[in-house]
Amino acid sequence: MSSRLRGVFAPVLTPFNDRLDPDPKRFITHCRWLLDQGVSLAIFGTNSEAASLTVNERLALTEDLLEAGVAAARLMPGTGGCSVMDAVTLTRHAVKNGAGGVLMLPPFYYKGVADEGLYAYYAEVIERVASEKLRIYLYHIPQITNVPISLNLIGMLRKRYPDTVVGAKDSSGNWDNTRAMLDSFASDGFDVFPASESLLSRAMPLGAAGCISATVNMNPAGIRAVYEGWNGADGGALQARADVIRSIFQSGPMIPAMKRVLAAFSGAASWRVVRPPLCALSDAAAAELLKTLAQAGFDMPAYPQT
Amino acid sequence: MSSRLRGVFAPVLTPFNDRLDPDPKRFITHCRWLLDQGVSLAIFGTNSEAASLTVNERLALTEDLLEAGVAAARLMPGTGGCSVMDAVTLTRHAVKNGAGGVLMLPPFYYKGVADEGLYAYYAEVIERVASEKLRIYLYHIPQITNVPISLNLIGMLRKRYPDTVVGAKDSSGNWDNTRAMLDSFASDGFDVFPASESLLSRAMPLGAAGCISATVNMNPAGIRAVYEGWNGADGGALQARADVIRSIFQSGPMIPAMKRVLAAFSGAASWRVVRPPLCALSDAAAAELLKTLAQAGFDMPAYPQT
Repeated sequence: MSSRLRGVFAPVLTPFNDRLDPDPKRFITHCRWLLDQGVSLAIFGTNSEAASLTVNERLALTEDLLEAGVAAARLMPGTGGCSVMDAVTLTRHAVKNGAGGVLMLPPFYYKGVADEGLYAYYAEVIERVASEKLRIYLYHIPQITNVPISLNLIGMLRKRYPDTVVGAKDSSGNWDNTRAMLDSFASDGFDVFPASESLLSRAMPLGAAGCISATVNMNPAGIRAVYEGWNGADGGALQARADVIRSIFQSGPMIPAMKRVLAAFSGAASWRVVRPPLCALSDAAAAELLKTLAQAGFDMPAYPQT
Repeated sequence: MSSRLRGVFAPVLTPFNDRLDPDPKRFITHCRWLLDQGVSLAIFGTNSEAASLTVNERLALTEDLLEAGVAAARLMPGTGGCSVMDAVTLTRHAVKNGAGGVLMLPPFYYKGVADEGLYAYYAEVIERVASEKLRIYLYHIPQITNVPISLNLIGMLRKRYPDTVVGAKDSSGNWDNTRAMLDSFASDGFDVFPASESLLSRAMPLGAAGCISATVNMNPAGIRAVYEGWNGADGGALQARADVIRSIFQSGPMIPAMKRVLAAFSGAASWRVVRPPLCALSDAAAAELLKTLAQAGFDMPAYPQT
């Protein structure tokens, strides 16, 4: 963890087999395909069903990726959780293995907690991991956690740990909040990643570092093109093209929909499997989705066949 | 897991040392004191900071209790969580050790999930644990989880697993919901536990099985007296007396307040320790609380001194 992470990240979908166990082989295949398209890997995010995985499953999948030769510097694993001790275990493992950074949820069980309590959680992880290589990106997703990462909390953490708490992912979907994060902290070297490629053209001029977006799993090259070309002659067209694809996935439950698309493009039916409490897409809904995508000219270039 | 669980349960507070590690010795002491007052033990509930514990910490504390000779039949451990596989591990362990039942949260990370997805989670645990000894109590606490246990879900589970899904704790604080649960399912042998002793006099006549309440940690004998005597000559007075104690704790953050009281009555200062994101009570707030309790004649009879 040394240079700043920038660019486009996929919150990597996690494949399961029919017994609901993680499938390391397909996981590695999907990660390699994403890397080949020029994006990086936010493994164990919301779209990864990370909350549905055990700590040991997350550690094992990370080891599998590294053994397969995936560059640790391009990984931003999710390491936050309800238990600060689980967060320590996952974060320490990420640092030990050279991950480029970690994306840390706040503890999300208790509600109405004070910023001092959230500060104490992050501070406990930082003090216990005790490594100058640690780079934390705060994960703000209040519609899921109901525990917001406030500007006040960011300020408290930046003041005490300026070289460790170096950025945030804003999944609020609230542009006013993203802009406030950028306005308050970007000029000071704090790297803000919106959670949608649709915000790239608006956020990049204000100093955003890229994006971490569910649909990078589906359209990595198209989103990378927006990141690289938003201020070029084709910027508007690239943004509009990526927005069309995103809007199709946003119309339904995204994780089951994206998994169903991977099942279709990889030929591996088990890609459709989700862990409870998520529900797999029905065959009818999947057929409709694939038809809509085809009409929009959607493709997954060179996706490895099973 | 054979006979039905009834009566008064404490969601047992979890003691930590100054390094934030669980303190098995004080945990056993507190559990024994509660049992001696005639109540049973809902270990690893919300008030236990269970979400802040790792799975291994929960397994180890359970083993410690059992090795100390605590009767497994009087335990109702919390075994639910975001990961269905963690829920399987914890539930299997509880059944193997003869716990009287388990109190199961729904998976609480993803929001807006369908009842079918929650059903799949409980069904997965039931099918994998595969024991006719398993007795599940569903844990409805929507103000924390934002994932309600609906009457529809209870009906679905009761239909398929009538001998396994045998009750619920209703922590909603919504009497209309508690009454609807009782009206819909109590006559069919489904045991509903409200989460407050203040509801005992109203819920018992409708067939409630008892209560599982935070303040049982503070006032076990008083709450047991309400459970046993609500319909006797002193019923109103017993209820009013318990309500006074409860109302004092409800005026602030309950977990830190209760821990501070245990620190005072046990002489063990470390009882005040909470894990982040909770914050310990300030000395000033603690002094005020203890003064208010003393004025109300509060006592913890025979609490073991350190």
